[in-house]
Amino acid sequence: MSDVAVIGLGAMGTALAEAFLNKGHSVTVWNRSPAKAQVLAAKGAVVAASLEDAVRSSQLIMVCLLVYDTVHEALAAAQEALSGRTLVNLTNGTPEQARAMSDWAVGHGANYIDGGIMAVPPMIGGQHALILYSGSRQAFDTHAGQLDALGTSMYLGEDAGLAPLYDISLLAGMYGLFAGVLQALSLTGAVGIRAGEFMPLLMSWLNAMQGALPKWAERIDSDDHTSAVVSNLGMQADAYVNLIDASTAAGISTELVLPMQDLMRRGVAAGKANADLSSLVGLLQLSKQATRD
Amino acid sequence: MSDVAVIGLGAMGTALAEAFLNKGHSVTVWNRSPAKAQVLAAKGAVVAASLEDAVRSSQLIMVCLLVYDTVHEALAAAQEALSGRTLVNLTNGTPEQARAMSDWAVGHGANYIDGGIMAVPPMIGGQHALILYSGSRQAFDTHAGQLDALGTSMYLGEDAGLAPLYDISLLAGMYGLFAGVLQALSLTGAVGIRAGEFMPLLMSWLNAMQGALPKWAERIDSDDHTSAVVSNLGMQADAYVNLIDASTAAGISTELVLPMQDLMRRGVAAGKANADLSSLVGLLQLSKQATRD
Repeated sequence: MSDVAVIGLGAMGTALAEAFLNKGHSVTVWNRSPAKAQVLAAKGAVVAASLEDAVRSSQLIMVCLLVYDTVHEALAAAQEALSGRTLVNLTNGTPEQARAMSDWAVGHGANYIDGGIMAVPPMIGGQHALILYSGSRQAFDTHAGQLDALGTSMYLGEDAGLAPLYDISLLAGMYGLFAGVLQALSLTGAVGIRAGEFMPLLMSWLNAMQGALPKWAERIDSDDHTSAVVSNLGMQADAYVNLIDASTAAGISTELVLPMQDLMRRGVAAGKANADLSSLVGLLQLSKQATRD
Repeated sequence: MSDVAVIGLGAMGTALAEAFLNKGHSVTVWNRSPAKAQVLAAKGAVVAASLEDAVRSSQLIMVCLLVYDTVHEALAAAQEALSGRTLVNLTNGTPEQARAMSDWAVGHGANYIDGGIMAVPPMIGGQHALILYSGSRQAFDTHAGQLDALGTSMYLGEDAGLAPLYDISLLAGMYGLFAGVLQALSLTGAVGIRAGEFMPLLMSWLNAMQGALPKWAERIDSDDHTSAVVSNLGMQADAYVNLIDASTAAGISTELVLPMQDLMRRGVAAGKANADLSSLVGLLQLSKQATRD
């Protein structure tokens, strides 16, 4: 028996197995193409002869594959062995996929935890690697000591869909940030300003602008988007035209920035000209019905 | 004679005039509708009877109107008075508008400086109010002491278009960030997670992800987007599908997040699957020709 099994040895799965080994846990590993397991064997991991052997080796089964379809396919061969064990699935997916996987695993007698890794492989094992978990609290509490080997653990609740929901929501914020930075660097680059020259100012500015976000949260939670607004949607929508015009004049695509203009204009048309930008959340929520079952 | 004239007394113009007064400068003000000037008169400002009188009152003329059309219209009546004075135009516009205004003002014998105010009115006068300037360096150096009354001044170069270019590029970054935050809060809000609960995690995550940006700058300046990539475009484009699917399943519009998916997919199709996200800048630059004259 091992303390933990790690199934799927891509860059992330390998980093997870190494982090467990580094913290002194015994680890059994399995990968469809066995070559990737040999590096870990040299570091003390046991290489399972089959996925079912890997599942039977440990109480705690970590799965980190590319997509959910592969998880279903792989675990179907070992479903008899899951009963009584804890399955922690770190594969990227949607809340819906996580809930369906949870139902399936619980149906086979396993405890299910879904996880979202908010880190790249080189960060795993360090405290800056944030890992989100949701699903069985009892199983999480039982294995929290082991899971802490991977980074900073955050448990979000019994709904298995919460970890991927938080994961995806954080990524939504990040890709918005990155899209904005791409546009900014395209604009400055078009007139020969070096990215390294502009970036410190941009980062300082983005940090300052993040200062508005706690107030956004207050406005959204209280549904009050109009009191003490210092820069209202109407003024911002008017000035936004310059971003579109300057991009076009500089030969920069407006594809990343037009949708926000359209949303702001719809906000103005919907009577939100005197409201804060936070009021636009309501326009994105096409359905107020939660998808949580 | 006054030290400075402030033309245009909206919320921002009023804040500018107050900041000058607070630092002990004599100020002449003018506004199309005179009522707004009375508040400043009570604080010691001289109210000019006409725009031309305002221009003749001072060596330093600050203009802060809503749009460039208004600036042209207003100053045309006082163009004879501009010769030998310094015109600082803080009206929001594009680099092209700033350069055209500069040509016009210089043609009438004025020194021209364009400015971009990276602050909201309540910040004016404090050191956190960043104000970008470009245009005549000699005029900037002459008046830097006075301009510092408004906040932290940053001079960018002789090209009058630089201040609006930087302004607009910083705004592009900010609106990307805000668009991402709107999507994130819509997703979490759809399952009843309070914005105030999620926001600290989101802000901490966004700060951490900003850590990638100095490396982006290096990659763009060296045109090397493929060495030591820890999370490549191909993997990110694959995982991005979850953001679209989860948004759709939660009844959240995908309008703000689809363009980034399309751009990432075009990047993969263009052979950038193993490159960093920074490589997408090249896809946004439809024309590599600089618009700087």
